[in-house]
Amino acid sequence: MSAKIVHNGVFLLPVQRIAIIGSGNLGVNLAYSLEKAAGLDFAGIYGRKERDFRGSDWQVRIQRLDTRLPQADCYFLALPDDSLASFTASFDFGDSLVVHHSGAKALSEIESAKHTAVFYPLQTFSADRIIGLEDVPVFLEATSAPTLRDLENLAGALGAKTHHANSEQRLRLHLAAVLANNFSNHLIYLAQNILEGSGLAGDSLNPLLEETFSKALKIGAFDAQTGPARRGDENTIARHLGLLDTPALRTLYRHLSDSIIETYSNKK
Amino acid sequence: MSAKIVHNGVFLLPVQRIAIIGSGNLGVNLAYSLEKAAGLDFAGIYGRKERDFRGSDWQVRIQRLDTRLPQADCYFLALPDDSLASFTASFDFGDSLVVHHSGAKALSEIESAKHTAVFYPLQTFSADRIIGLEDVPVFLEATSAPTLRDLENLAGALGAKTHHANSEQRLRLHLAAVLANNFSNHLIYLAQNILEGSGLAGDSLNPLLEETFSKALKIGAFDAQTGPARRGDENTIARHLGLLDTPALRTLYRHLSDSIIETYSNKK
Repeated sequence: MSAKIVHNGVFLLPVQRIAIIGSGNLGVNLAYSLEKAAGLDFAGIYGRKERDFRGSDWQVRIQRLDTRLPQADCYFLALPDDSLASFTASFDFGDSLVVHHSGAKALSEIESAKHTAVFYPLQTFSADRIIGLEDVPVFLEATSAPTLRDLENLAGALGAKTHHANSEQRLRLHLAAVLANNFSNHLIYLAQNILEGSGLAGDSLNPLLEETFSKALKIGAFDAQTGPARRGDENTIARHLGLLDTPALRTLYRHLSDSIIETYSNKK
Repeated sequence: MSAKIVHNGVFLLPVQRIAIIGSGNLGVNLAYSLEKAAGLDFAGIYGRKERDFRGSDWQVRIQRLDTRLPQADCYFLALPDDSLASFTASFDFGDSLVVHHSGAKALSEIESAKHTAVFYPLQTFSADRIIGLEDVPVFLEATSAPTLRDLENLAGALGAKTHHANSEQRLRLHLAAVLANNFSNHLIYLAQNILEGSGLAGDSLNPLLEETFSKALKIGAFDAQTGPARRGDENTIARHLGLLDTPALRTLYRHLSDSIIETYSNKK
């Protein structure tokens, strides 16, 4: 895994034949990118059940993984976090590179294999909305410098922007992603739910959401903050609390407001 | 305020000469839209202090409001919620229309005036990022049907999309906007803060944020939900909680995760 060959102008990677194990949201998105990448040999995507996966402009056959691994230089383990260790221990990967994609698990999680690395794309993936890796920041970690270089080349061939992060930094990235993505998405669900419960169209919020996120990216979320908590308007906060149906939602609203109040009382 | 005149193809509104009182985020954004609208006579924007406000492609002179109101058919009160009632009571608006823009205050807040209405744009406004009202959903309420029609015409001339909402519905809209906009923005700030504290670039989150909101709008936030809480992955939740610095942040993380767990245990 060290010599680099250029053939007919196509850059051939030392890690060239890649198989994906796992056919969930991440697996099928990675399959899309690997199949479209030039200079890589996609050895297929493997899951528990054989089936055809159809994207809007693309399809791929998911093969059944039996007791034998397909032949590959590199295995992408697009598996649930908690099955990474036991899956890795149950196969002999020989000299092939074994890669996991988890934000929350350390590189050592798959240490039963000889050559290991992490390829963590900071993005949210859904099987019913396939996206490429272009412009996705991918955070890499590997047990050796040559493996890290191989992985950088591989990520480059997929169009991803690479950075390095050790296992603890990656867990912080994952935490940040959960706050910014999973929790924001849930708040949007709660908001859409309130509108629908009031006989108002849920999509009335769309222009607001577009502006919110465009603004947070452009001027930074600290400066973009507005609203009753930012102004310390306890009167409006009390009236909102009065509208919320459950103690759990009222507690959530109160804690988020207090966190905003606390943020702006300490800074600036 | 009822006859409609068409002059040289320009639709002249019965409510034609509009003055804005208040030169904060909302006031200057409304001034931009009113000054650019055809068929309306913008009587100017008034605040506590005289000054020139400069947007990127536009500027306006903010005039000082003394003891006398400028002459207008309609006054937009772009004032803090808590000063709406006392401001309205301290002037004689005669037969002119008095309009407030608050999501949280009832129409009755300004009942000391003779003709009153609410024009609530469901959008977040900043003075350093001026936007037009095109495509902004504006929720209207008025004390009489003719006033409501006048207001609809006025909102139409500003390019806004109009809907009707009574004072209680509007408070729910405002609550939904706080959840979806203010609270999401704060979570993005917390996420950017975690990255910066770990020596990682805060803008690494940008592609994730773009995908999150594009997905929530396209397939709905309920179906777009991913993450440890959605999967019930208490192991990862515990590791994230271990990284958070303060009891307040840990409480916030726990409540948001529980709200997601609760949402998906009851439905689907």
